[in-house]
Amino acid sequence: MLRISDTLDLPGVAPLLCAGITTYSPLHHWRVGPGQKVGIAGLGGLGHMGIKFSHAFGAHTVLFTTSPSKVIDGKRLGADEVMIAKNPGEMAVHANSFDFILDTIAGPHEVSRYLDLLKRDGTLTQVGAPEKPMAVEIFSLIFKRRNFAGSLIGGVKETQEMLDFCAEHQIIADVEIIPIQKINEAYERMLRSDVKYRFSIDMSSLSHAA
Amino acid sequence: MLRISDTLDLPGVAPLLCAGITTYSPLHHWRVGPGQKVGIAGLGGLGHMGIKFSHAFGAHTVLFTTSPSKVIDGKRLGADEVMIAKNPGEMAVHANSFDFILDTIAGPHEVSRYLDLLKRDGTLTQVGAPEKPMAVEIFSLIFKRRNFAGSLIGGVKETQEMLDFCAEHQIIADVEIIPIQKINEAYERMLRSDVKYRFSIDMSSLSHAA
Repeated sequence: MLRISDTLDLPGVAPLLCAGITTYSPLHHWRVGPGQKVGIAGLGGLGHMGIKFSHAFGAHTVLFTTSPSKVIDGKRLGADEVMIAKNPGEMAVHANSFDFILDTIAGPHEVSRYLDLLKRDGTLTQVGAPEKPMAVEIFSLIFKRRNFAGSLIGGVKETQEMLDFCAEHQIIADVEIIPIQKINEAYERMLRSDVKYRFSIDMSSLSHAA
Repeated sequence: MLRISDTLDLPGVAPLLCAGITTYSPLHHWRVGPGQKVGIAGLGGLGHMGIKFSHAFGAHTVLFTTSPSKVIDGKRLGADEVMIAKNPGEMAVHANSFDFILDTIAGPHEVSRYLDLLKRDGTLTQVGAPEKPMAVEIFSLIFKRRNFAGSLIGGVKETQEMLDFCAEHQIIADVEIIPIQKINEAYERMLRSDVKYRFSIDMSSLSHAA
């Protein structure tokens, strides 16, 4: 049983139970906090929550995205910097400087390019789940004793802790509320990444049967 | 400047400055010790030192090798168990049971098969250095929040600590001493993995010029 604060808007709370805890859990486990430089790779449902939590934990937060169109939204969500990840020169500036990177990208991507941004003993944790095996350049790990890890959602106790943290910091997901009649359209839009950043279904629409 | 105990045989000390510190450093950094189950993948120059250190740190030590001919030597060096890594059934028995695995294999190999043997929050650290990128099944990391890391030799301070630990536990490398005149032959044998487990060159042989 989970307790949800009355001060939080429920449609924005719904995704906390998936995208919220999936990003809160690793940021909390690897002790992200003030004085640290933290990267969030990818700005989708997971990434937008990752930015909010990393910012709320007090870390200097950098969004990596391949879409220049996402710079403004990244900053609005709490990123201190936004880096265009397809620009090697811009990435090189950040080499060996990150304490932690949360990788929310589910599509194929060159993870070693992000590993090379970690400082000594830094960790990159994958929460996006690419279908195919990821190619890791082993020298990206051997130099600087870097860690490549994964994380899967979180338990009930930690989910409650996350909900309490969200109440304290007034954090919810950015959602678009849809009636259940639009679920197929919403699914098609999700496949095109045309959602900022999660759909919440208004269950009262169930009674308006066609 | 490094201090070497008089009680250690010098030809067996020489490889400690490379294979020794390369395996001691990660086993020490990831706090291998009593009550833990630790795997050493591969039995060559690095692997034979990994077994000796893991055993001396008090961990239950398991050697993974693809060569049934190495079982006896693995146990002589300090392994409590030897697992034939090309037998999937034998590997499945050990799933989710290891605290730490030191992977000394430099050739191409399926690292995800070893990652799957780690328990929650376990770490596999690569010290062998495959030339090509390694393919990592991301679900091997996401489930159980496992870590895939790398480690590169060690600093002078930790090397001294390792030498002092070796003196205390009377640990040296297993070496075959050769005169410098046999260096080309030794190099060819090394390429065929025909060495147990390091060559040490007797520098006094330099004066016996042909």
